[in-house]
Amino acid sequence: MSLNSVIDATESAVADDPRNAVAHFAVDHRLDDLPAEKPTLVHVKARGHEFTVDEPAALGGADAAANPVEYALAALGSCQVITYQFWAAKLGITLDSIRVTVAGDLDLHGFFGFDNEVRPGFRGVRVSVDLGGPDRSRFPELQIAVDQHCPVLDLFSNPTPAQTELVPPRNA
Amino acid sequence: MSLNSVIDATESAVADDPRNAVAHFAVDHRLDDLPAEKPTLVHVKARGHEFTVDEPAALGGADAAANPVEYALAALGSCQVITYQFWAAKLGITLDSIRVTVAGDLDLHGFFGFDNEVRPGFRGVRVSVDLGGPDRSRFPELQIAVDQHCPVLDLFSNPTPAQTELVPPRNA
Repeated sequence: MSLNSVIDATESAVADDPRNAVAHFAVDHRLDDLPAEKPTLVHVKARGHEFTVDEPAALGGADAAANPVEYALAALGSCQVITYQFWAAKLGITLDSIRVTVAGDLDLHGFFGFDNEVRPGFRGVRVSVDLGGPDRSRFPELQIAVDQHCPVLDLFSNPTPAQTELVPPRNA
Repeated sequence: MSLNSVIDATESAVADDPRNAVAHFAVDHRLDDLPAEKPTLVHVKARGHEFTVDEPAALGGADAAANPVEYALAALGSCQVITYQFWAAKLGITLDSIRVTVAGDLDLHGFFGFDNEVRPGFRGVRVSVDLGGPDRSRFPELQIAVDQHCPVLDLFSNPTPAQTELVPPRNA
């Protein structure tokens, strides 16, 4: 199914019932049998998709996989790529290639609690988008549409309410 | 190296020169040879680690991998797990197991531009943390420390400046 067909099908489904637009996502993370030999190797499951997360040696891991903040950057970069695909289809702009690089710095004073004035997360993030195709004069228009509608760019740019809770003990 | 050794080594390195605390991360994303048969399959490279991102069929993909917003939830869940490991070590709290589930909803009115009043990203996110171990009375103290120092929880909860730019054409 072409992306324009997906857009049209979604528009019809949402017109029938706006609740069809609500998408629910859930991801599980596991670290069992502690103390583990690999204390930062996390097993992740998102629907049927499984992958791992780890830390480099300098952060206590065996570097078996990318680390959490790299996955966060990858979420942003891949969301930009896919949003470019959808909005190029919607606006009738031809793309021949898309490459996106996302880079960010963070100051470990925050994570380790060495300085509680330093935020633990990224201080800022830079996204470089390299597009190929014949409609170059329309790329700035496309960039504006993408940046207004990219779910993970919204997550980075704006606060998302996140509530954490400890699960009560099963035998309490 | 134990996590406490990592904490001590980092503290020494940062005391020598605070600039040692700045960690730089960069991730590349590629979609070549468009129009592609799989228009949402993104190839990602973070240092030496490669993986893919895709969309389910309802969002135009072949469901070859988790999608960008699932990777964003996985970044948060895995960051919580690893931050629990570090802060349990730092506070001397024994953990036998850690499981974290992260769930969130988003309203596709935003992504598709059907309603520009609807944000494209998650409306909210819930993180359930299931800890096992003998020091249950100290888990609430641990939760507070983790949530103050978790880099990706900070990314969700607070704005992170994110700047996007189009790379100028190479032959212009």
